Amino acid sequence: MMQKIESVQNETVKRACKLAVSAKFRQAEKAFFLEGARLCCDAAMSGAAVLQCFVTEDALRKESDRLTLLLDRAAQSSLISDAVAQKLSQTKSPQGVFCVCAMEPLQAAIDPNGVYLALDHIQDPANLGAMIRTAEALGLEGAILCGCCDVYNPKAQRAAMGSLLRMPLVITDDLAILLSRQKDAGMHVLATTPDASAQNLTQMPLSGGVIAVIGNEANGVSEGVFAVCEKVTIPMNGRAESLNASMAAAITMWELVRSR
Amino acid sequence: MMQKIESVQNETVKRACKLAVSAKFRQAEKAFFLEGARLCCDAAMSGAAVLQCFVTEDALRKESDRLTLLLDRAAQSSLISDAVAQKLSQTKSPQGVFCVCAMEPLQAAIDPNGVYLALDHIQDPANLGAMIRTAEALGLEGAILCGCCDVYNPKAQRAAMGSLLRMPLVITDDLAILLSRQKDAGMHVLATTPDASAQNLTQMPLSGGVIAVIGNEANGVSEGVFAVCEKVTIPMNGRAESLNASMAAAITMWELVRSR
Repeated sequence: MMQKIESVQNETVKRACKLAVSAKFRQAEKAFFLEGARLCCDAAMSGAAVLQCFVTEDALRKESDRLTLLLDRAAQSSLISDAVAQKLSQTKSPQGVFCVCAMEPLQAAIDPNGVYLALDHIQDPANLGAMIRTAEALGLEGAILCGCCDVYNPKAQRAAMGSLLRMPLVITDDLAILLSRQKDAGMHVLATTPDASAQNLTQMPLSGGVIAVIGNEANGVSEGVFAVCEKVTIPMNGRAESLNASMAAAITMWELVRSR
Repeated sequence: MMQKIESVQNETVKRACKLAVSAKFRQAEKAFFLEGARLCCDAAMSGAAVLQCFVTEDALRKESDRLTLLLDRAAQSSLISDAVAQKLSQTKSPQGVFCVCAMEPLQAAIDPNGVYLALDHIQDPANLGAMIRTAEALGLEGAILCGCCDVYNPKAQRAAMGSLLRMPLVITDDLAILLSRQKDAGMHVLATTPDASAQNLTQMPLSGGVIAVIGNEANGVSEGVFAVCEKVTIPMNGRAESLNASMAAAITMWELVRSR
Protein backbone atom coordinates (compact mmCIF):
# COMPACT_ATOMS: atom_id res chain seq x y z
CA MET A 1 0.00 0.00 0.00
CA MET A 2 1.54 3.27 -1.13
CA GLN A 3 1.49 6.44 0.89
CA LYS A 4 -0.63 9.16 -0.74
CA ILE A 5 0.70 12.73 -1.11
CA GLU A 6 -1.72 15.42 -2.21
CA SER A 7 -0.09 18.57 -0.82
CA VAL A 8 2.73 20.46 -2.52
CA GLN A 9 3.74 21.55 0.99
CA ASN A 10 4.61 17.94 1.95
CA GLU A 11 8.16 17.81 3.37
CA THR A 12 9.27 14.88 1.18
CA VAL A 13 8.08 16.75 -1.89
CA LYS A 14 9.82 19.97 -0.84
CA ARG A 15 13.06 18.06 -0.25
CA ALA A 16 12.83 16.43 -3.71
CA CYS A 17 12.29 19.86 -5.33
CA LYS A 18 15.35 21.19 -3.55
CA LEU A 19 17.42 18.21 -4.75
CA ALA A 20 16.32 19.02 -8.31
CA VAL A 21 17.59 22.62 -8.23
CA SER A 22 20.51 22.77 -5.77
CA ALA A 23 23.87 21.08 -6.40
CA LYS A 24 24.94 22.12 -2.90
CA PHE A 25 21.92 20.44 -1.31
CA ARG A 26 22.56 17.30 -3.41
CA GLN A 27 26.14 17.16 -2.09
CA ALA A 28 25.01 17.70 1.50
CA GLU A 29 22.31 15.02 1.27
CA LYS A 30 24.33 12.64 -0.96
CA ALA A 31 21.15 12.19 -3.01
CA PHE A 32 19.82 13.33 -6.39
CA PHE A 33 16.49 13.68 -8.18
CA LEU A 34 15.39 12.18 -11.51
CA GLU A 35 12.29 12.74 -13.65
CA GLY A 36 10.71 10.47 -16.25
CA ALA A 37 9.72 6.79 -16.38
CA ARG A 38 12.60 5.77 -18.59
CA LEU A 39 15.32 7.64 -16.71
CA CYS A 40 14.09 6.45 -13.29
CA CYS A 41 13.89 2.82 -14.50
CA ASP A 42 17.35 3.10 -16.10
CA ALA A 43 18.70 4.30 -12.75
CA ALA A 44 17.11 1.38 -10.90
CA MET A 45 18.41 -1.11 -13.47
CA SER A 46 21.89 0.41 -13.33
CA GLY A 47 21.95 -0.45 -9.63
CA ALA A 48 21.36 3.00 -8.16
CA ALA A 49 19.79 2.87 -4.68
CA VAL A 50 16.28 4.34 -5.11
CA LEU A 51 15.40 6.06 -1.85
CA GLN A 52 12.03 7.42 -2.86
CA CYS A 53 9.73 7.03 -5.81
CA PHE A 54 6.79 9.33 -6.72
CA VAL A 55 4.16 8.31 -9.27
CA THR A 56 0.77 9.64 -10.33
CA GLU A 57 -2.22 7.27 -10.70
CA ASP A 58 -2.22 8.08 -14.39
CA ALA A 59 1.43 7.06 -14.79
CA LEU A 60 0.82 3.89 -12.79
CA ARG A 61 -1.94 2.89 -15.22
CA LYS A 62 -0.05 3.80 -18.41
CA GLU A 63 3.41 2.55 -17.46
CA SER A 64 2.60 -0.32 -15.08
CA ASP A 65 5.01 -2.84 -16.68
CA ARG A 66 7.92 -0.46 -16.60
CA LEU A 67 7.19 0.83 -13.13
CA THR A 68 6.99 -2.58 -11.43
CA LEU A 69 10.77 -2.87 -11.28
CA LEU A 70 11.18 0.71 -10.09
CA LEU A 71 8.57 0.37 -7.34
CA ASP A 72 10.07 -2.98 -6.26
CA ARG A 73 13.49 -1.43 -5.83
CA ALA A 74 12.37 1.78 -4.14
CA ALA A 75 12.81 1.95 -0.35
CA GLN A 76 9.69 4.11 -0.21
CA SER A 77 6.98 4.87 -2.81
CA SER A 78 4.28 7.51 -2.90
CA LEU A 79 1.19 8.00 -5.02
CA ILE A 80 1.04 11.71 -5.85
CA SER A 81 -1.66 14.08 -7.08
CA ASP A 82 -1.33 15.90 -10.41
CA ALA A 83 -0.64 19.12 -8.50
CA VAL A 84 2.34 17.50 -6.76
CA ALA A 85 3.58 16.11 -10.10
CA GLN A 86 3.40 19.63 -11.56
CA LYS A 87 5.38 20.96 -8.60
CA LEU A 88 8.10 18.28 -8.95
CA SER A 89 8.37 18.52 -12.72
CA GLN A 90 10.78 20.58 -14.80
CA THR A 91 8.47 20.18 -17.82
CA LYS A 92 5.06 21.57 -18.75
CA SER A 93 3.37 18.20 -19.20
CA PRO A 94 4.93 15.84 -16.65
CA GLN A 95 4.89 12.07 -17.24
CA GLY A 96 4.24 11.68 -13.52
CA VAL A 97 7.26 9.52 -12.58
CA PHE A 98 10.03 10.81 -10.31
CA CYS A 99 12.61 9.36 -7.96
CA VAL A 100 15.29 10.29 -5.45
CA CYS A 101 18.44 8.13 -5.55
CA ALA A 102 21.53 7.87 -3.37
CA MET A 103 24.82 9.12 -4.85
CA GLU A 104 27.55 6.53 -5.35
CA PRO A 105 31.18 7.51 -4.82
CA LEU A 106 32.55 8.50 -8.26
CA GLN A 107 36.11 7.25 -8.37
CA ALA A 108 36.77 4.73 -11.11
CA ALA A 109 40.32 3.57 -11.84
CA ILE A 110 41.84 4.51 -15.22
CA ASP A 111 42.79 1.58 -17.47
CA PRO A 112 46.05 2.69 -19.20
CA ASN A 113 44.98 0.83 -22.36
CA GLY A 114 41.52 2.36 -22.50
CA VAL A 115 40.05 5.31 -24.39
CA TYR A 116 38.75 8.14 -22.18
CA LEU A 117 37.07 11.48 -22.65
CA ALA A 118 38.25 14.24 -20.30
CA LEU A 119 35.95 17.22 -19.82
CA ASP A 120 37.69 20.41 -18.71
CA HIS A 121 35.20 22.87 -17.17
CA ILE A 122 32.15 21.97 -19.29
CA GLN A 123 29.41 24.23 -17.92
CA ASP A 124 26.24 23.31 -19.78
CA PRO A 125 24.49 20.28 -18.21
CA ALA A 126 22.87 19.25 -21.51
CA ASN A 127 26.30 19.32 -23.22
CA LEU A 128 27.84 17.26 -20.43
CA GLY A 129 25.05 14.66 -20.59
CA ALA A 130 25.11 14.42 -24.40
CA MET A 131 28.89 13.93 -24.44
CA ILE A 132 28.78 11.14 -21.85
CA ARG A 133 25.90 9.49 -23.75
CA THR A 134 28.02 9.58 -26.93
CA ALA A 135 31.09 8.28 -25.07
CA GLU A 136 29.09 5.30 -23.85
CA ALA A 137 27.51 4.63 -27.25
CA LEU A 138 30.93 4.63 -28.93
CA GLY A 139 32.31 2.24 -26.32
CA LEU A 140 34.79 4.45 -24.47
CA GLU A 141 36.05 3.09 -21.16
CA GLY A 142 35.08 6.11 -19.08
CA ALA A 143 35.21 9.86 -18.57
CA ILE A 144 37.32 12.20 -16.45
CA LEU A 145 35.68 15.41 -15.22
CA CYS A 146 37.37 18.54 -13.89
CA GLY A 147 35.49 21.66 -12.82
CA CYS A 148 32.35 20.67 -14.74
CA CYS A 149 28.74 21.36 -13.82
CA ASP A 150 27.20 18.80 -11.44
CA VAL A 151 26.67 15.38 -13.02
CA TYR A 152 23.55 15.00 -10.88
CA ASN A 153 21.92 18.08 -12.42
CA PRO A 154 18.56 16.79 -13.76
CA LYS A 155 19.25 18.34 -17.21
CA ALA A 156 22.58 16.49 -17.41
CA GLN A 157 20.93 13.23 -16.36
CA ARG A 158 18.16 13.66 -18.94
CA ALA A 159 20.60 14.35 -21.80
CA ALA A 160 22.77 11.41 -20.68
CA MET A 161 19.86 8.93 -20.94
CA GLY A 162 21.19 6.92 -18.02
CA SER A 163 24.81 6.85 -19.21
CA LEU A 164 26.01 9.08 -16.35
CA LEU A 165 24.90 6.32 -13.96
CA ARG A 166 26.62 3.56 -15.92
CA MET A 167 29.88 5.04 -17.25
CA PRO A 168 32.99 4.82 -15.03
CA LEU A 169 33.66 8.45 -14.01
CA VAL A 170 36.74 10.01 -12.44
CA ILE A 171 36.39 13.39 -10.76
CA THR A 172 39.56 15.45 -10.32
CA ASP A 173 40.33 18.99 -9.26
CA ASP A 174 43.72 19.00 -11.00
CA LEU A 175 43.39 17.67 -14.53
CA ALA A 176 46.93 18.72 -15.56
CA ILE A 177 48.51 16.55 -12.84
CA LEU A 178 46.21 13.60 -13.56
CA LEU A 179 47.08 13.80 -17.28
CA SER A 180 50.83 14.03 -16.57
CA ARG A 181 50.64 10.87 -14.48
CA GLN A 182 48.72 9.02 -17.21
CA LYS A 183 51.31 10.16 -19.78
CA ASP A 184 54.01 8.69 -17.55
CA ALA A 185 51.95 5.49 -17.50
CA GLY A 186 52.20 5.41 -21.32
CA MET A 187 48.89 6.94 -22.39
CA HIS A 188 48.47 9.47 -25.19
CA VAL A 189 46.95 12.70 -23.92
CA LEU A 190 45.30 14.84 -26.61
CA ALA A 191 43.64 18.25 -26.63
CA THR A 192 41.57 19.56 -29.51
CA THR A 193 42.23 23.11 -30.69
CA PRO A 194 40.90 25.21 -33.58
CA ASP A 195 44.58 26.10 -34.35
CA ALA A 196 45.06 24.80 -37.90
CA SER A 197 48.83 24.31 -37.38
CA ALA A 198 48.17 21.50 -34.86
CA GLN A 199 48.32 17.85 -35.91
CA ASN A 200 45.37 16.72 -38.04
CA LEU A 201 42.89 14.58 -36.09
CA THR A 202 43.18 11.87 -38.76
CA GLN A 203 46.89 11.48 -38.01
CA MET A 204 46.42 10.80 -34.30
CA PRO A 205 47.87 7.74 -32.64
CA LEU A 206 45.09 5.17 -32.88
CA SER A 207 46.55 2.41 -30.74
CA GLY A 208 47.22 2.20 -27.01
CA GLY A 209 45.52 4.14 -24.25
CA VAL A 210 44.26 7.64 -25.07
CA ILE A 211 42.66 10.49 -23.15
CA ALA A 212 41.03 13.19 -25.31
CA VAL A 213 40.41 16.51 -23.58
CA ILE A 214 37.45 18.73 -24.54
CA GLY A 215 37.57 22.26 -23.17
CA ASN A 216 35.06 24.76 -21.83
CA GLU A 217 32.35 25.90 -24.28
CA ALA A 218 33.59 29.51 -24.39
CA ASN A 219 37.27 29.36 -23.43
CA GLY A 220 38.47 25.95 -24.63
CA VAL A 221 41.03 23.84 -22.77
CA SER A 222 42.68 25.48 -19.71
CA GLU A 223 46.26 26.69 -20.20
CA GLY A 224 47.88 24.32 -17.70
CA VAL A 225 46.06 21.32 -19.16
CA PHE A 226 46.82 22.35 -22.74
CA ALA A 227 50.55 22.47 -21.90
CA VAL A 228 50.75 18.75 -21.09
CA CYS A 229 48.73 17.63 -24.16
CA GLU A 230 49.54 16.70 -27.74
CA LYS A 231 47.55 19.22 -29.81
CA VAL A 232 45.19 17.97 -32.50
CA THR A 233 42.77 19.81 -34.75
CA ILE A 234 39.67 18.94 -36.74
CA PRO A 235 40.37 20.41 -40.18
CA MET A 236 37.77 23.07 -41.05
CA ASN A 237 36.96 23.90 -44.62
CA GLY A 238 34.04 26.15 -44.02
CA ARG A 239 33.48 29.66 -42.75
CA ALA A 240 32.30 28.70 -39.25
CA GLU A 241 35.06 29.58 -36.81
CA SER A 242 34.81 26.41 -34.79
CA LEU A 243 32.66 23.46 -33.86
CA ASN A 244 30.71 23.52 -30.63
CA ALA A 245 32.15 21.46 -27.77
CA SER A 246 29.73 18.51 -28.10
CA MET A 247 30.22 18.20 -31.85
CA ALA A 248 34.02 18.38 -31.50
CA ALA A 249 33.82 15.71 -28.78
CA ALA A 250 31.67 13.40 -30.94
CA ILE A 251 34.03 13.65 -33.92
CA THR A 252 37.16 13.20 -31.78
CA MET A 253 35.78 10.15 -29.95
CA TRP A 254 34.61 8.60 -33.20
CA GLU A 255 38.06 9.08 -34.75
CA LEU A 256 39.69 7.45 -31.70
CA VAL A 257 37.50 4.35 -31.75
CA ARG A 258 36.47 3.80 -35.37
CA SER A 259 39.42 1.65 -36.39
CA ARG A 260 39.89 -0.21 -33.12
CA MET B 1 20.53 60.80 -35.22
CA MET B 2 18.82 57.65 -34.00
CA GLN B 3 15.18 57.48 -33.06
CA LYS B 4 14.67 56.84 -29.33
CA ILE B 5 12.25 54.17 -28.10
CA GLU B 6 11.44 54.06 -24.41
CA SER B 7 8.05 52.35 -24.40
CA VAL B 8 7.52 48.60 -24.57
CA GLN B 9 4.18 49.43 -26.20
CA ASN B 10 5.92 50.93 -29.25
CA GLU B 11 4.54 49.33 -32.44
CA THR B 12 7.98 48.58 -33.92
CA VAL B 13 8.98 46.82 -30.69
CA LYS B 14 5.74 44.82 -30.58
CA ARG B 15 6.26 43.73 -34.18
CA ALA B 16 9.84 42.63 -33.42
CA CYS B 17 8.64 40.59 -30.43
CA LYS B 18 6.04 38.90 -32.60
CA LEU B 19 8.70 38.07 -35.22
CA ALA B 20 10.76 36.46 -32.44
CA VAL B 21 8.03 34.07 -31.35
CA SER B 22 5.79 33.35 -34.36
CA ALA B 23 6.97 31.38 -37.41
CA LYS B 24 3.64 32.18 -39.08
CA PHE B 25 4.13 35.92 -38.60
CA ARG B 26 7.71 35.64 -39.92
CA GLN B 27 6.41 33.96 -43.09
CA ALA B 28 3.67 36.55 -43.54
CA GLU B 29 6.08 39.47 -43.05
CA LYS B 30 9.04 37.83 -44.84
CA ALA B 31 11.20 39.06 -41.98
CA PHE B 32 12.95 37.59 -38.92
CA PHE B 33 14.40 38.72 -35.62
CA LEU B 34 17.94 38.25 -34.26
CA GLU B 35 19.45 38.94 -30.84
CA GLY B 36 23.08 39.51 -29.89
CA ALA B 37 25.88 41.74 -31.20
CA ARG B 38 27.77 38.92 -32.85
CA LEU B 39 24.78 37.28 -34.53
CA CYS B 40 23.39 40.62 -35.81
CA CYS B 41 26.81 41.63 -37.19
CA ASP B 42 27.27 38.19 -38.79
CA ALA B 43 23.90 38.63 -40.50
CA ALA B 44 24.86 42.08 -41.84
CA MET B 45 28.24 40.77 -43.04
CA SER B 46 26.59 37.77 -44.71
CA GLY B 47 24.61 40.23 -46.83
CA ALA B 48 21.23 39.97 -45.11
CA ALA B 49 19.10 43.11 -45.56
CA VAL B 50 18.86 44.65 -42.07
CA LEU B 51 15.48 46.40 -41.91
CA GLN B 52 15.69 47.57 -38.33
CA CYS B 53 18.32 47.67 -35.64
CA PHE B 54 17.74 48.19 -31.88
CA VAL B 55 20.60 49.02 -29.51
CA THR B 56 20.85 50.21 -25.92
CA GLU B 57 23.17 53.09 -24.97
CA ASP B 58 25.18 50.64 -22.93
CA ALA B 59 25.71 48.30 -25.90
CA LEU B 60 26.61 51.25 -28.12
CA ARG B 61 29.36 52.21 -25.69
CA LYS B 62 30.71 48.68 -25.13
CA GLU B 63 30.47 47.37 -28.69
CA SER B 64 30.92 50.53 -30.74
CA ASP B 65 33.49 49.04 -33.19
CA ARG B 66 31.39 46.01 -33.93
CA LEU B 67 28.14 47.95 -34.19
CA THR B 68 29.37 50.53 -36.70
CA LEU B 69 28.96 48.11 -39.60
CA LEU B 70 25.57 46.97 -38.38
CA LEU B 71 24.23 50.50 -37.91
CA ASP B 72 25.63 51.53 -41.33
CA ARG B 73 23.79 48.72 -43.05
CA ALA B 74 20.49 49.06 -41.18
CA ALA B 75 17.68 50.84 -43.04
CA GLN B 76 16.48 52.14 -39.67
CA SER B 77 18.12 52.23 -36.22
CA SER B 78 16.68 52.92 -32.79
CA LEU B 79 18.24 53.66 -29.42
CA ILE B 80 16.22 51.67 -26.87
CA SER B 81 15.79 51.82 -23.11
CA ASP B 82 16.79 48.90 -20.87
CA ALA B 83 13.09 48.12 -20.37
CA VAL B 84 12.62 47.73 -24.13
CA ALA B 85 15.76 45.57 -24.33
CA GLN B 86 14.33 43.32 -21.62
CA LYS B 87 11.05 43.06 -23.54
CA LEU B 88 12.82 42.13 -26.81
CA SER B 89 15.25 39.69 -25.23
CA GLN B 90 14.94 35.92 -24.86
CA THR B 91 17.64 35.98 -22.15
CA LYS B 92 17.75 37.24 -18.58
CA SER B 93 20.68 39.63 -19.08
CA PRO B 94 20.34 40.99 -22.60
CA GLN B 95 23.42 42.34 -24.45
CA GLY B 96 21.17 45.07 -25.83
CA VAL B 97 21.63 44.45 -29.57
CA PHE B 98 18.78 43.24 -31.77
CA CYS B 99 17.80 43.43 -35.42
CA VAL B 100 15.05 42.59 -37.87
CA CYS B 101 16.20 41.27 -41.26
CA ALA B 102 14.46 40.46 -44.53
CA MET B 103 14.17 36.78 -45.51
CA GLU B 104 15.95 35.72 -48.67
CA PRO B 105 14.37 33.08 -50.91
CA LEU B 106 15.90 29.71 -49.83
CA GLN B 107 16.35 27.69 -52.98
CA ALA B 108 19.93 26.76 -53.70
CA ALA B 109 20.77 24.37 -56.54
CA ILE B 110 22.26 20.97 -55.62
CA ASP B 111 25.76 20.29 -57.00
CA PRO B 112 25.73 16.56 -57.91
CA ASN B 113 29.40 16.30 -56.88
CA GLY B 114 28.90 17.97 -53.50
CA VAL B 115 28.37 16.64 -49.99
CA TYR B 116 25.01 17.58 -48.41
CA LEU B 117 23.24 17.06 -45.13
CA ALA B 118 19.49 16.38 -45.40
CA LEU B 119 17.40 16.97 -42.29
CA ASP B 120 14.15 15.01 -42.17
CA HIS B 121 11.70 16.56 -39.66
CA ILE B 122 14.24 17.87 -37.14
CA GLN B 123 12.06 19.59 -34.53
CA ASP B 124 14.47 21.15 -32.03
CA PRO B 125 15.73 24.57 -33.20
CA ALA B 126 19.00 24.25 -31.23
CA ASN B 127 19.68 20.85 -32.86
CA LEU B 128 18.94 22.26 -36.31
CA GLY B 129 21.25 25.24 -35.76
CA ALA B 130 24.08 23.13 -34.32
CA MET B 131 23.94 20.68 -37.22
CA ILE B 132 24.09 23.45 -39.84
CA ARG B 133 26.98 25.08 -37.94
CA THR B 134 28.85 21.75 -38.03
CA ALA B 135 28.03 21.24 -41.72
CA GLU B 136 29.52 24.63 -42.54
CA ALA B 137 32.61 24.07 -40.35
CA LEU B 138 33.29 20.72 -42.03
CA GLY B 139 32.95 22.29 -45.48
CA LEU B 140 29.75 20.64 -46.75
CA GLU B 141 28.20 22.25 -49.84
CA GLY B 142 24.77 22.80 -48.33
CA ALA B 143 21.78 21.37 -46.50
CA ILE B 144 18.36 20.10 -47.55
CA LEU B 145 15.49 20.56 -45.10
CA CYS B 146 12.12 18.80 -45.07
CA GLY B 147 9.44 19.36 -42.43
CA CYS B 148 11.92 20.89 -39.97
CA CYS B 149 11.30 23.64 -37.45
CA ASP B 150 11.63 27.17 -38.85
CA VAL B 151 15.23 28.11 -39.75
CA TYR B 152 14.40 31.68 -38.70
CA ASN B 153 13.56 30.61 -35.13
CA PRO B 154 15.86 32.75 -32.93
CA LYS B 155 17.11 29.64 -31.07
CA ALA B 156 18.08 27.98 -34.35
CA GLN B 157 19.84 31.16 -35.50
CA ARG B 158 21.73 31.42 -32.21
CA ALA B 159 22.93 27.80 -32.29
CA ALA B 160 23.91 28.20 -35.97
CA MET B 161 26.22 31.15 -35.22
CA GLY B 162 25.38 32.77 -38.56
CA SER B 163 25.79 29.59 -40.62
CA LEU B 164 22.05 29.41 -41.43
CA LEU B 165 22.45 32.75 -43.24
CA ARG B 166 25.54 31.61 -45.18
CA MET B 167 24.97 27.93 -46.06
CA PRO B 168 23.13 27.13 -49.31
CA LEU B 169 19.79 25.68 -48.16
CA VAL B 170 17.17 23.75 -50.11
CA ILE B 171 13.67 23.48 -48.65
CA THR B 172 11.48 20.64 -49.90
CA ASP B 173 8.13 19.19 -48.88
CA ASP B 174 8.88 15.83 -50.50
CA LEU B 175 12.33 14.62 -49.51
CA ALA B 176 11.82 11.11 -50.96
CA ILE B 177 11.22 12.49 -54.47
CA LEU B 178 14.12 14.95 -54.23
CA LEU B 179 16.45 12.15 -53.14
CA SER B 180 15.28 9.83 -55.93
CA ARG B 181 16.06 12.52 -58.49
CA GLN B 182 19.52 13.11 -57.04
CA LYS B 183 20.16 9.34 -57.11
CA ASP B 184 19.26 9.36 -60.81
CA ALA B 185 21.77 12.20 -61.19
CA GLY B 186 24.45 9.89 -59.77
CA MET B 187 24.58 10.93 -56.11
CA HIS B 188 24.83 8.53 -53.17
CA VAL B 189 21.88 8.92 -50.82
CA LEU B 190 22.51 7.60 -47.31
CA ALA B 191 20.37 7.29 -44.19
CA THR B 192 21.76 6.51 -40.76
CA THR B 193 20.03 3.85 -38.68
CA PRO B 194 20.77 2.22 -35.31
CA ASP B 195 20.17 -1.17 -37.06
CA ALA B 196 23.50 -2.98 -36.62
CA SER B 197 22.93 -5.09 -39.75
CA ALA B 198 23.22 -1.99 -41.97
CA GLN B 199 26.48 -1.12 -43.73
CA ASN B 200 29.21 0.22 -41.38
CA LEU B 201 29.68 3.98 -41.72
CA THR B 202 33.40 3.43 -42.32
CA GLN B 203 32.62 1.43 -45.45
CA MET B 204 30.55 4.15 -47.10
CA PRO B 205 31.35 5.42 -50.58
CA LEU B 206 33.70 8.34 -49.97
CA SER B 207 33.93 9.73 -53.50
CA GLY B 208 31.37 11.48 -55.70
CA GLY B 209 28.31 13.41 -54.57
CA VAL B 210 26.62 12.31 -51.34
CA ILE B 211 23.50 13.30 -49.40
CA ALA B 212 23.36 12.03 -45.79
CA VAL B 213 19.89 12.02 -44.22
CA ILE B 214 19.44 12.58 -40.47
CA GLY B 215 15.98 11.76 -39.13
CA ASN B 216 13.66 13.20 -36.50
CA GLU B 217 14.96 13.19 -32.91
CA ALA B 218 12.34 10.70 -31.67
CA ASN B 219 11.25 8.75 -34.76
CA GLY B 220 14.30 8.71 -37.03
CA VAL B 221 14.13 8.88 -40.82
CA SER B 222 10.60 8.77 -42.37
CA GLU B 223 9.60 5.48 -43.97
CA GLY B 224 9.27 6.80 -47.54
CA VAL B 225 12.65 8.54 -47.33
CA PHE B 226 14.33 5.51 -45.75
CA ALA B 227 13.13 3.32 -48.65
CA VAL B 228 15.15 5.28 -51.25
CA CYS B 229 18.36 5.40 -49.16
CA GLU B 230 21.41 3.19 -48.72
CA LYS B 231 21.38 2.30 -45.01
CA VAL B 232 24.46 2.96 -42.92
CA THR B 233 25.10 2.58 -39.22
CA ILE B 234 27.53 3.98 -36.69
CA PRO B 235 28.82 0.89 -34.87
CA MET B 236 27.95 1.04 -31.16
CA ASN B 237 29.99 -0.78 -28.59
CA GLY B 238 28.42 0.64 -25.50
CA ARG B 239 25.15 0.24 -23.65
CA ALA B 240 23.54 3.47 -24.88
CA GLU B 241 20.83 2.54 -27.37
CA SER B 242 21.63 5.25 -29.84
CA LEU B 243 23.35 8.56 -30.41
CA ASN B 244 21.30 11.74 -30.40
CA ALA B 245 20.53 13.25 -33.80
CA SER B 246 23.17 16.02 -33.64
CA MET B 247 25.94 13.68 -32.56
CA ALA B 248 25.04 11.14 -35.27
CA ALA B 249 25.03 13.99 -37.82
CA ALA B 250 28.47 15.26 -36.69
CA ILE B 251 30.05 11.80 -36.93
CA THR B 252 28.43 11.04 -40.30
CA MET B 253 29.46 14.36 -41.86
CA TRP B 254 33.01 13.99 -40.53
CA GLU B 255 33.27 10.50 -42.01
CA LEU B 256 32.04 11.80 -45.40
CA VAL B 257 34.55 14.64 -45.62
CA ARG B 258 37.61 13.51 -43.65
CA SER B 259 39.41 11.79 -46.51
CA ARG B 260 38.34 14.14 -49.32
